[in-house]
Amino acid sequence: MSNSSGQQDLFAENNEGKTAMAAAKEPKEPKAKAETPTENAESMAKRQREISVSEFFTKNRHLLGFDSPRKALLTAVKEAVDNSLDACEEGRIMPDIRVTISRIGDSDKKYTMTVEDNGPGIVKAQVPNVFGRLLYGSKFHRLRQSRGQQGIGISAAGMYGQLTTGMPVRVRSKAGKRATPCYYEIRIDSAKNRPVSTEKDIEWEKDHGTEVSIDMEGEYRRGQRGIEEFLKLMAVANPHVHLVYTDPDGNVTEYLRGTKELPKEVEEIKPHPHGVELGILLKMLQETESTQVSAFLQNDFSRVGPSVAKEICAQAGIKPETNPRRVQNDDVIKMKAAIDATKIMAPPLSCIAPIGEELIIAGLKKEVEADFYVAASRKPVVYRGRPFAIEVGLAYGKPGDTLQMTDSGKIVAQEKKKVNEEVLMGAADEPVRLIRFANRVPLVFQQSACAITKAVIDTNWKNYGLLQPRGALPIGPLVVFVHIASVWVPFTSESKEAIASYDEIRDELRLALMECGRRLGTHVRKGRKLANEFKKRNYITMYIPHVVEALKDILVLDEPAVKKATESLTTVLEKSRKL
Amino acid sequence: MSNSSGQQDLFAENNEGKTAMAAAKEPKEPKAKAETPTENAESMAKRQREISVSEFFTKNRHLLGFDSPRKALLTAVKEAVDNSLDACEEGRIMPDIRVTISRIGDSDKKYTMTVEDNGPGIVKAQVPNVFGRLLYGSKFHRLRQSRGQQGIGISAAGMYGQLTTGMPVRVRSKAGKRATPCYYEIRIDSAKNRPVSTEKDIEWEKDHGTEVSIDMEGEYRRGQRGIEEFLKLMAVANPHVHLVYTDPDGNVTEYLRGTKELPKEVEEIKPHPHGVELGILLKMLQETESTQVSAFLQNDFSRVGPSVAKEICAQAGIKPETNPRRVQNDDVIKMKAAIDATKIMAPPLSCIAPIGEELIIAGLKKEVEADFYVAASRKPVVYRGRPFAIEVGLAYGKPGDTLQMTDSGKIVAQEKKKVNEEVLMGAADEPVRLIRFANRVPLVFQQSACAITKAVIDTNWKNYGLLQPRGALPIGPLVVFVHIASVWVPFTSESKEAIASYDEIRDELRLALMECGRRLGTHVRKGRKLANEFKKRNYITMYIPHVVEALKDILVLDEPAVKKATESLTTVLEKSRKL
Repeated sequence: MSNSSGQQDLFAENNEGKTAMAAAKEPKEPKAKAETPTENAESMAKRQREISVSEFFTKNRHLLGFDSPRKALLTAVKEAVDNSLDACEEGRIMPDIRVTISRIGDSDKKYTMTVEDNGPGIVKAQVPNVFGRLLYGSKFHRLRQSRGQQGIGISAAGMYGQLTTGMPVRVRSKAGKRATPCYYEIRIDSAKNRPVSTEKDIEWEKDHGTEVSIDMEGEYRRGQRGIEEFLKLMAVANPHVHLVYTDPDGNVTEYLRGTKELPKEVEEIKPHPHGVELGILLKMLQETESTQVSAFLQNDFSRVGPSVAKEICAQAGIKPETNPRRVQNDDVIKMKAAIDATKIMAPPLSCIAPIGEELIIAGLKKEVEADFYVAASRKPVVYRGRPFAIEVGLAYGKPGDTLQMTDSGKIVAQEKKKVNEEVLMGAADEPVRLIRFANRVPLVFQQSACAITKAVIDTNWKNYGLLQPRGALPIGPLVVFVHIASVWVPFTSESKEAIASYDEIRDELRLALMECGRRLGTHVRKGRKLANEFKKRNYITMYIPHVVEALKDILVLDEPAVKKATESLTTVLEKSRKL
Repeated sequence: MSNSSGQQDLFAENNEGKTAMAAAKEPKEPKAKAETPTENAESMAKRQREISVSEFFTKNRHLLGFDSPRKALLTAVKEAVDNSLDACEEGRIMPDIRVTISRIGDSDKKYTMTVEDNGPGIVKAQVPNVFGRLLYGSKFHRLRQSRGQQGIGISAAGMYGQLTTGMPVRVRSKAGKRATPCYYEIRIDSAKNRPVSTEKDIEWEKDHGTEVSIDMEGEYRRGQRGIEEFLKLMAVANPHVHLVYTDPDGNVTEYLRGTKELPKEVEEIKPHPHGVELGILLKMLQETESTQVSAFLQNDFSRVGPSVAKEICAQAGIKPETNPRRVQNDDVIKMKAAIDATKIMAPPLSCIAPIGEELIIAGLKKEVEADFYVAASRKPVVYRGRPFAIEVGLAYGKPGDTLQMTDSGKIVAQEKKKVNEEVLMGAADEPVRLIRFANRVPLVFQQSACAITKAVIDTNWKNYGLLQPRGALPIGPLVVFVHIASVWVPFTSESKEAIASYDEIRDELRLALMECGRRLGTHVRKGRKLANEFKKRNYITMYIPHVVEALKDILVLDEPAVKKATESLTTVLEKSRKL
């Protein structure tokens, strides 16, 4: 919608009869010189104005994962399913989700995505905001693990649908047994970033839940990076989910629950003092409802009790009974320093729910057929006052094998028809298969931009008997599963496809990968030894013929002598250390 | 400031006496179970609300390039310099820029960044908005090449400064000879994304210009990814700039103008019909000031004259005199189809200003000492109605050389002390040095996430005689310069560090790289041949000793016989095709 508004501007400038001229001769442009005279502060000021967040994301929609029709469909499904799972877990309901993709008309370019859940539903008044406004939601300000965190995703999907098909988002919701189900059609006014909606009551058999339908331009693909694979991986990381997927051809795939247990309920925590920046502290002091600094510290932060509060005040030279609003600039800086200097217990870890080693290995065994499995679930650590935990799992096939995905989406280790030599040269064979998860959501795109990928590349897999080209993923029949669970995952873009490279996260990734790598190494080395042996033989059999040929020329040997020479040569060469 | 607001929420929940309890025992938390009861639609609704764009970017500030103190300083300098250069070019003023970084107190953690330009200045009323509001600016809605495009950068730098030091942004500006210079101190109210500022008139000797100073937490580094290198690369791509840089130790570096010419003035264009999506078209139809569809098409788009407009109307089955606001849903879809089906001249290219092959090679020669230089400046093409041009330059040293950056920042090809064999195995030596530019701005971070990097990796450099590990940058003493010039560069994040992988852009990159690669190939191959020869000899000399040893054992030869055998063997083996 950027264009159109940019347009109006232009038009205003054109209104001095220039457009008439322009229209007259074709295809000549109105003289742009005239349109854009040398600027001065005034002329530039005329053009300065606010950009709505919707306009911004419409123009930069690749930031939200809607850059190509192929990605759009998957991104939309991901955002909708994320919301459904979050809602169910918050409501402590075992999720029951239906995802349906259907063609619009007989076109292969337009689809309707429908995602229905049995979550707690959404109260009428909020439906238009939730689906018709970017940067609107309940998760952004809370410190607890959830899939969504920005309040952008599903509205962005709706915005993309509207942009490419002109159709509104359609929502059915029922907020509990006694609530009247309602139906909404929602458009986004992108210049204002506000919803424009129509509503009516409807009949809906279910007790509670939400269903969202979006028409959009899309491209439907199977296989890697397809919706099937995404949902499969989603099921791996969320064994408590029952999910039914219907593809555009009407094929139905059902993912049954692997467990009857919901993930551990995550609890909301307050910010930890060590994670708070000066500017935030300043703001908190202004906005707190506490009337004394000491109470402020104890009420507004986690892990601060009377004695810690006292220690901080003392160190900062501020009276505990001071009114927080009276704490002035320099005192704030002193207080920040005092907080950083004070030893404070790490924040409670109840706010995150890692998957756990058993479930990771179980999940891998379910999806990857391999020789060897190992997993490591690091205990949570804290970054900027925000707890996070890294988990890694490995599945390794036979050396020389390669991992293939079967039509059923199952990954199987198959024998490779390549000369072993090549494999050892690192020239042939495939890089390992890396599957990334953040808060139990599979990350499908932007692998190369992801801190997880960088950590895997930075790990020296040669130590663990794998081949690894410089600055690239290791080579071999290996699946690497990596999960980060956090109250706040720093993604490299709003599309939440890759993790930003924060040092604390890289470190934990490294440690988790090494932990698994070491155990993999011992397993791999055997196979590796054999291969080396094989390579050595190759060399020998490669050179003997030339040597013998040479011998004949030089010493005119008879057949038996040649035979004898050949044998002895073989022996000697095999013994030789140099090879 | 997310935390603090999240805080208030929490506090509200605490106000039921829980906090008193919590404060009593330490460090136990108020029972989080109590804080987060099982949710239902109502309880969730209470928490749903708008998130201000400032709150969002404060929490996700890595999206803006402020994730680490090391990056923060450079990002701030980049944003300020971008604005200065854009302003000068819009005002057709030869840029004269001063960048100063100074320590705050004797700390190595806090710095003041000051960037002063001789641009047209900013009118008083706009100063607070430009520096105190995210998503506010003049470039977003315009279709012409500029460095800034989002209206985020400099305000984000200010926000980061405020967050880490609590200090406001300080701005001096003078909007022309007759204007009174003014001084502002600006803070951002992040909950509202609005500036809070104080202002006073001041004396300022210069005719016109702007100076911005920001205090921030930072980490000062030299060398690669340092401010020096950024400014150096900036000077390469902007030879018309005169820039004086003063580092925290008071060292002054001056970049003199390489040319007295400003870059060609870029002209603003209207959107091209082929780049317009259904949703946009719909909006334009509603908002146009034209009263007839035919006039609408001619006035609001580029390259549409009477006959093209007529053709589109006919194809869509819409009367040319129809009122645009009357064009209904189905007709809009028909009109979009008609537009796509109609042949329309490509948009004018006057809106972008590539650097050009001569200037690229000149720039490379200035900064990189090598044997061989080549450049290709592709002619602009159109993507989604937006013209863009790809330019590539290569600088190649001697085989076995490696590119080192001297203290003066100059890159020199130096001899490598490595066995040639290793180099040929691709195991040793360094990957090529890739320098990326977008609209004349050097891209310093997120190389691996960038479409440019992917295009370089996807290019088969073995064809051009270079080594290249699978899925990695090629190996060798090569500097690869890549520039994209466009009215709209699709960056992977608001920090504008990497280009998103749009197919059209990848294609052009590939073609430009191949064009240069082919010419590089012919140059490289000679050196390569010799190296192979050398490798062959290595093998031979490697095996002869074993063979001879074997001969002695078997045939009890005397010294002269051994000598003769050795010589003949060497000859035979060298002749042998198999090696």
